[in-house]
Amino acid sequence: MKMTMKMDQAALSAFMRRDFPQVADDFIIESVTPEELTVRLVVSEKHLRPGGTVSGPTMFGLADVALYLAIQARIGPVALAVTTNCSIDFLRKPAAGRDLVAVARLLKLGRVLAVGDVMLYSIGEPAPVARSGLTYSIPPVQG
Amino acid sequence: MKMTMKMDQAALSAFMRRDFPQVADDFIIESVTPEELTVRLVVSEKHLRPGGTVSGPTMFGLADVALYLAIQARIGPVALAVTTNCSIDFLRKPAAGRDLVAVARLLKLGRVLAVGDVMLYSIGEPAPVARSGLTYSIPPVQG
Amino acid sequence: MKMTMKMDQAALSAFMRRDFPQVADDFIIESVTPEELTVRLVVSEKHLRPGGTVSGPTMFGLADVALYLAIQARIGPVALAVTTNCSIDFLRKPAAGRDLVAVARLLKLGRVLAVGDVMLYSIGEPAPVARSGLTYSIPPVQG
Amino acid sequence: MKMTMKMDQAALSAFMRRDFPQVADDFIIESVTPEELTVRLVVSEKHLRPGGTVSGPTMFGLADVALYLAIQARIGPVALAVTTNCSIDFLRKPAAGRDLVAVARLLKLGRVLAVGDVMLYSIGEPAPVARSGLTYSIPPVQG
Repeated sequence: MKMTMKMDQAALSAFMRRDFPQVADDFIIESVTPEELTVRLVVSEKHLRPGGTVSGPTMFGLADVALYLAIQARIGPVALAVTTNCSIDFLRKPAAGRDLVAVARLLKLGRVLAVGDVMLYSIGEPAPVARSGLTYSIPPVQG
Repeated sequence: MKMTMKMDQAALSAFMRRDFPQVADDFIIESVTPEELTVRLVVSEKHLRPGGTVSGPTMFGLADVALYLAIQARIGPVALAVTTNCSIDFLRKPAAGRDLVAVARLLKLGRVLAVGDVMLYSIGEPAPVARSGLTYSIPPVQG
Repeated sequence: MKMTMKMDQAALSAFMRRDFPQVADDFIIESVTPEELTVRLVVSEKHLRPGGTVSGPTMFGLADVALYLAIQARIGPVALAVTTNCSIDFLRKPAAGRDLVAVARLLKLGRVLAVGDVMLYSIGEPAPVARSGLTYSIPPVQG
Repeated sequence: MKMTMKMDQAALSAFMRRDFPQVADDFIIESVTPEELTVRLVVSEKHLRPGGTVSGPTMFGLADVALYLAIQARIGPVALAVTTNCSIDFLRKPAAGRDLVAVARLLKLGRVLAVGDVMLYSIGEPAPVARSGLTYSIPPVQG
């Protein structure tokens, strides 16, 4: 199975800054291959829950962004994937005062659906804080 | 099965304001029974994604809060439930400029786990925008 | 939203007997409307796990069949839906020696995806033994 | 994190034959470490759906068995884990006439909950046919 990418790390970062300027500064794309993408969340006050650890919605959002970018790397910026399902397991409390990193694997890229999984880690910790599986619908490209 | 509540609507609202002051103004608890709780998200700028509809992380957060409150209504404010799993299906784009309402049903309240489902609606629309199932771990009460 | 069915209870039962003769005797379609379908699993030895209660794979299969039939009722026997995702929560041990009943609700029927949820009960018990959410891909009808 | 196993491959196989004699011949435990277990399903007629490929309930059951064994390897045969949640994505039709192999990773083994993920493959194919995340409740050991 030969797989090609339509956007590399630089193109994806530019795509983020153009299409999602509100959140582009929160995310740093660390690496991307046709099968796997790693993105770092620069944790700040707005991402925290009472108690000072990263909130559930923030972790959900990070997993969602990570696989979204992995899909866009493959299909290019023309059609935009839409999340249809996410199942997420929260495994451990994130370490306080640390960024989170998401490792997204694209397991299937079909004509209308893309599916993958994402592991989330506190930077520097081997045990994941969350795992999730996500499905995206890929709309037909408008002519 | 006789079920009792340890916090009613007023007690839950006070609990929110005390323990989650950052977000308490976003949520209005509309009704609560031992089996079902309805909470409204007062949608504002911070909840929107590019394009102006409510974001995925916001919908996840609303479902999470809704079932969390349904559990706390039953167990009281002593032990705090922790989300361990969420599966969410995004069904339709929320209507722009409308609040969201979540209807949470508590399906099981065990000694260590609570499970329920949550339907999300744009106010005034009959078709749900998302559905989800969530599991919470209930820590032992500290003596 | 006006919804019509392409197969009623009798047509669905005939469809089951013709296309799934190996399992058709296990399932009794009890009722069907455009939004909801109820199907009963006639529990026998092959459905049990060690200990004598209905097995997890059997419960998964019942949920899957229930929503599949709810979709086919709406789209007719031409295109066959394919399960792409299932999230299931096991809530309680089924009652020994009782049939199971599944209540499937179709929450979205789109052009390429259908989504719904299913509650499973031991006949005669009010508390569900499992709940699940399922997604199906609907292949394009072959010309 | 030092992790030890209470049952190795031989002990797990004996445990299967003793506690699950009905299905023990279907499964071959191929390898086990504290973090990962690989088990093969010897596919036979009863596992197939109309059309001749492995059925959804069979894939669900294989994922469930795989992580169950991974947990029992760690906790021993005293307490028996109970599945509480499974989310499964069906990615591709399994290859006809081939066994399936499941690779289970244990991501968290807590006091009351264990969580992991499982990838399913048709033997000899690099692309997975399904992926799933599962949660088990670990009952307290009876004194």
